[in-house]
Amino acid sequence: MTPVRAASDISLSTADTSIVVVVLAISVLALAMGFVFRRQVLVTSTGTQSMQEIGAAVQEGASAYLGRQFKTLGVFAVVAFLLLLVLPADDMTIRVGRSVAFLFGAAFSASIGYLGMNLATAANMRVAEAARHGDRDAGMRIAFRTGGTVGMATVGLGLLGAALVVLVYQGDAPKVLEGFGFGAALLAMFMRVGGGIFTKAADVGADLVGKVEAGIPEDDPRNAATIADNVGDNVGDCAGMAADLFESYAVTLVAALILGTAALGANGGLTFPLIIPAIGALTAILGVFITKARADESGLSAINRGFYLSAGVAAVASVVAALVFLPRSADGLRDQISILGDPVVVDLNPAVRSAAAVVVGIVLAAFILWLTGHFTGTESKPTKDVARTSLTGPATVVLSGIGLGLESAVYTAVTIAAAVFLLFTLGGGSLILSLFFVALAGCGLLTTVGVIVAMDTFGPVSDNAQGIAEMSGDVDGEGAQILTELDAVGNTTKAITKGIAIATAVLAATALFGSYFDAIQQTIGTALGENGDLLQSFLVFDPRALVGVLIGGAVVFLFSGLAINAVTRAAGAIVFEVRRQFRERPGIMDYTEKPDYARVVDICTKDSLRELATPGLLAVFAPIAVGFGLGVGALAGYLAGAIGTGVLMAVFLANSGGSWDNAKKIVEDGAHGGKGSDAHAATVIGDTIGDPFKDTAGPAINPLIKVMNLVALLIAPAIVGLTYGDGANDMVRWLIAIVAALVIVAAVTVSKRRDIAIGGAPKGAEVLSDR
Amino acid sequence: MTPVRAASDISLSTADTSIVVVVLAISVLALAMGFVFRRQVLVTSTGTQSMQEIGAAVQEGASAYLGRQFKTLGVFAVVAFLLLLVLPADDMTIRVGRSVAFLFGAAFSASIGYLGMNLATAANMRVAEAARHGDRDAGMRIAFRTGGTVGMATVGLGLLGAALVVLVYQGDAPKVLEGFGFGAALLAMFMRVGGGIFTKAADVGADLVGKVEAGIPEDDPRNAATIADNVGDNVGDCAGMAADLFESYAVTLVAALILGTAALGANGGLTFPLIIPAIGALTAILGVFITKARADESGLSAINRGFYLSAGVAAVASVVAALVFLPRSADGLRDQISILGDPVVVDLNPAVRSAAAVVVGIVLAAFILWLTGHFTGTESKPTKDVARTSLTGPATVVLSGIGLGLESAVYTAVTIAAAVFLLFTLGGGSLILSLFFVALAGCGLLTTVGVIVAMDTFGPVSDNAQGIAEMSGDVDGEGAQILTELDAVGNTTKAITKGIAIATAVLAATALFGSYFDAIQQTIGTALGENGDLLQSFLVFDPRALVGVLIGGAVVFLFSGLAINAVTRAAGAIVFEVRRQFRERPGIMDYTEKPDYARVVDICTKDSLRELATPGLLAVFAPIAVGFGLGVGALAGYLAGAIGTGVLMAVFLANSGGSWDNAKKIVEDGAHGGKGSDAHAATVIGDTIGDPFKDTAGPAINPLIKVMNLVALLIAPAIVGLTYGDGANDMVRWLIAIVAALVIVAAVTVSKRRDIAIGGAPKGAEVLSDR
Repeated sequence: MTPVRAASDISLSTADTSIVVVVLAISVLALAMGFVFRRQVLVTSTGTQSMQEIGAAVQEGASAYLGRQFKTLGVFAVVAFLLLLVLPADDMTIRVGRSVAFLFGAAFSASIGYLGMNLATAANMRVAEAARHGDRDAGMRIAFRTGGTVGMATVGLGLLGAALVVLVYQGDAPKVLEGFGFGAALLAMFMRVGGGIFTKAADVGADLVGKVEAGIPEDDPRNAATIADNVGDNVGDCAGMAADLFESYAVTLVAALILGTAALGANGGLTFPLIIPAIGALTAILGVFITKARADESGLSAINRGFYLSAGVAAVASVVAALVFLPRSADGLRDQISILGDPVVVDLNPAVRSAAAVVVGIVLAAFILWLTGHFTGTESKPTKDVARTSLTGPATVVLSGIGLGLESAVYTAVTIAAAVFLLFTLGGGSLILSLFFVALAGCGLLTTVGVIVAMDTFGPVSDNAQGIAEMSGDVDGEGAQILTELDAVGNTTKAITKGIAIATAVLAATALFGSYFDAIQQTIGTALGENGDLLQSFLVFDPRALVGVLIGGAVVFLFSGLAINAVTRAAGAIVFEVRRQFRERPGIMDYTEKPDYARVVDICTKDSLRELATPGLLAVFAPIAVGFGLGVGALAGYLAGAIGTGVLMAVFLANSGGSWDNAKKIVEDGAHGGKGSDAHAATVIGDTIGDPFKDTAGPAINPLIKVMNLVALLIAPAIVGLTYGDGANDMVRWLIAIVAALVIVAAVTVSKRRDIAIGGAPKGAEVLSDR
Repeated sequence: MTPVRAASDISLSTADTSIVVVVLAISVLALAMGFVFRRQVLVTSTGTQSMQEIGAAVQEGASAYLGRQFKTLGVFAVVAFLLLLVLPADDMTIRVGRSVAFLFGAAFSASIGYLGMNLATAANMRVAEAARHGDRDAGMRIAFRTGGTVGMATVGLGLLGAALVVLVYQGDAPKVLEGFGFGAALLAMFMRVGGGIFTKAADVGADLVGKVEAGIPEDDPRNAATIADNVGDNVGDCAGMAADLFESYAVTLVAALILGTAALGANGGLTFPLIIPAIGALTAILGVFITKARADESGLSAINRGFYLSAGVAAVASVVAALVFLPRSADGLRDQISILGDPVVVDLNPAVRSAAAVVVGIVLAAFILWLTGHFTGTESKPTKDVARTSLTGPATVVLSGIGLGLESAVYTAVTIAAAVFLLFTLGGGSLILSLFFVALAGCGLLTTVGVIVAMDTFGPVSDNAQGIAEMSGDVDGEGAQILTELDAVGNTTKAITKGIAIATAVLAATALFGSYFDAIQQTIGTALGENGDLLQSFLVFDPRALVGVLIGGAVVFLFSGLAINAVTRAAGAIVFEVRRQFRERPGIMDYTEKPDYARVVDICTKDSLRELATPGLLAVFAPIAVGFGLGVGALAGYLAGAIGTGVLMAVFLANSGGSWDNAKKIVEDGAHGGKGSDAHAATVIGDTIGDPFKDTAGPAINPLIKVMNLVALLIAPAIVGLTYGDGANDMVRWLIAIVAALVIVAAVTVSKRRDIAIGGAPKGAEVLSDR
């Protein structure tokens, strides 16, 4: 076996430095374009007095929530920062750099979330106003450019951070970037969970008490929960998703740089993983510019055209870049790529295979886009079948939606598994090259991220525009028609981006999983010397890792269960509050009294901030407990179990939810009895069940698996150090594991103390059930 | 590393032979006791004319179904028999022996299922008759002794088969027994899936059209689906569960014998794994005899007392047996236990540690029993909370039940993982000893199986007794009260046995997983010679196994989705049939016309036989496709993913379903508005959704993971032979993988062709929706 590689020996050549500087320039260009798009949104008219008032109320609620959320998360960030400083690293420079990079990753993630929310709340009323004047094109442009701004910020800040670190730390950059990725992922996970609970608690609560009990329509101003519902769209679907996609972007970049250094060394390992996303930044600008609906086509066709065109250009440009910047022969790499005990000497063309890997990533994005649409679209057979089961009541709607979700998760997971297998095959027997290709495919997939963020943000903006129009009562006729169309388009784009997000998560997590092995090999080599070689494999992987697989899958289940329970609880609290307002202010129903919107926003804020801690702590401390307690082998199994179960659960939850949502739309469009029929009531129940599935638990699994992989990567050297060689100390190892386990137990216990059944309702809740 | 061990060198000493003969005698004694219990059931009175008629109709339907099912499965069995003959083995004797043992395993599994069904249908009316005379003790005794008969048959046939094979084949017995276990598991899986679809299609269909639409009570004779519902209890809950528990028993025994031979060789490896279940057979007889309710206590307390007492006796006896029959020092085992590359030389007392392992298994059984009760019992806080969410409608009932299921799955999985970790620790660094201890813990858990089968069969018998009483109208007052009590006890015992069944599944699967590694090591050693040593570990396990983990988890999701969809489809067909009968025979409602019960039984039979093929083929062919296509490493990942995701899904589905069932009971007992309230309607919807969760998809995952592990174990040598060394042939390997994959794709495609929405309903189904 080869000696342990010292990545830090690698430094940037002059040519490499120029490349990184060009990448930096592109990142600045992307940020500048973001400002241009933002300006284009903000110069448009803000609408009638009433629309502005409602818009301001939503904006105020969203800002207040995010402000309080950042204060809470600040505490977590400081603690994580200090823990990172304590964790061993090669030297002090790396340790400090990594911790500082963590803060930057977290800050960038938070800023993008805030920017997304802030601009979206400004754009909502502007889209409604454009629709009021019957200008579909303007409405669509405003909504899409709002997303474009966030997309440019995502791409620009991600590239900027990574390129700067590479420029400063050169060969040590991958280790420092672990901190950057961890910061981004951790913040995104918290924002996803908190925002997801907020938005669905408000949505479910509003629906249960408004549509189901009081029989008033959605977004009716008499419902005290409507403003909270709109705030939720902005803090959950906008801020949460933007932070999540930024995190995907950053983590994939980090994984590609770690593995690029390991696989290619100075032959493009530090630069090529930056070149691909830089190409993506340029094609994203193109994509946002060319997305314009022709007079006779739907908004969705225009958006799809923009996506496919920019993806195609990115694919061609990436192939060219690979052929130009990467070596054509693996000769110089032989030493490098035999790391990790690769038995096979590799004889392949890295440039051609890297190009192929990037293309696999882009094709995967396009295929997942199609697959998600096939299962959850209103025009697709599977969802039509779910709608049809409404004829035999809510139970069959729920069962058929669950069946659809389980099945679609299988196809998505098997597709991703096939792509990973193909990428491994491209590696030609070299494990480290295989893993690098997985990371490169992730980068390929991410060339589309600028447009994806734009598409995703389109969803909540058009949803909110419709809400504001409905509440103000100022938009009708053609304008209302336009808003309904934009909202439907937004529903579809939102579903699609979820599929892409989970695909990037798996690729990034697989690459990180490989990096974890790399980290163990290196540190075990140091701890045990050359004689440890034979031992290594057994230490890392044996049937005992099965215990880890079990626990890893279990954590995904627990996380999902906690998120769903949190929504059930918080929604219950809102139901009781709105019922209270109806009872204590009888004038609300005939419009003579105004409901207390702020109080509901306040309940949502408090509940979601309280609820986000437990799943968050679980994600960070579970790998610590398993790793220090059961060893590096069990932790490897843990990660594999979490990734495997995670992708299945994420897709299952997202697609079941998406399909119930659209089954309801099919019935509302007149099928099986239409609005007001028993079949409609059955699909409304299905949709409500799907809400926390698709917008709270499902998407939060994304950042979850990456946070856990990054934690494992960061603690691997410490575990090895305490387990093998001179520094072995079982006492300390167990102490750490026990403390971590206790933190989880305490968090779960506290969360269970809360009255699980019906949120903040007083004990004698039944008495209040005055329906 | 040590040379490859030749297990077949081991032969039975005279002392060992005597032990096996004694075990054989105990197995015959158990079978004899089964006959005694059966006779005690059959001598009791069969009740009124009307009760006998209904009982006969149920018996006829159940016999007809099982008869047709066995014909269908016969084809599968013959194909599997021929395939087994083709698979490589050490020599022709083993190959033929294994294939013949397969047929015996399958035949035993089928016989126990048939016996269970047959006696249960005879016992149903006898329990109802005893209750009619107000004799609670007699009713309980008949129901419990019916279960006792099946329990004795399970234990007796399992021990008989294993002991005979050990006597004849000696050191080769483990290899031959792989066939026995595979036959038992395969048949059980098909019976579980087929019976599960039958029983829940009938139950859900009957509820949807009877309780929900027509507003008539459960088991009302005017509902054409009631007889089918009762038939379902017998073919699903009775025959299916009995075959499943027999399979758990057989497979655990097989795993213990494989690993016992590997770990202890001639020092008790072939005998001790038989001694523990033999002790269990004796204590089960004790348990059935002492289970008798005192005048002032509930039936459940009596059953629990029987369980705990016999488990305690078994624990003590097992400890004594370990100390008497096993060596006190590992000195003689050093060569043996360094197999699988164990780096650590072991210095421990095998007798004491084996005793501890058996006790861990028994304690695990008791703990799971408590945990399942805690989550799903009517008196427990979690289920009470689910019942309370009915105040905010069906959506919150479904969400809180799903949250509870996910959470309880976590605790169960983590408990089992902790037990496995503890057993690994007992192994003192020796992998093969660790795995043997896991198998021994499985044997310990199985000492309770006789009583567990009796408890489980108690459920459908008392359920059916109530159904017959209700339909005949001959039992009222005190008798009806007794039957309600017995039914409630049966619900709880059914839920508990599911928890135990999944725990045995994980232990058996973990042990088989280890055996799979053993098989690979041995055959790779042969294929590559000593020089292959260094390679082995990497071939078996590297990050690429992650692809396998993904696919393994995906298969569990697909299997669950297929099973749930099958029930939704079949239930829809029944809804349309019963509606048709109500419409075409208007006299049914005022009792002037009789519904056509047989037609519904016929639909259930046809649908479930048609639907069981796809999940069954998936279970057998998926590991073949993965193993031959992606290699032994990916197949290892596949098994780990399937076990991890499998246990979580199985417990999630079982406990969500169990909790909804009991939440409904809580409301029916008067909470939150009681029967007829909106809250009641909400819990009925939850219960209907839970039906296929807890009685179709959930329990079938049990045999699924064992079938997949056994398939992997059987094909491992063939994969290695085609991958490494002189026999390597990628063409053949890929051909096999592609054919297997095509079989799965074809099966899934055919199953999707069926009209997913509403079963056998004609295309214009909406027209028929004349509610």
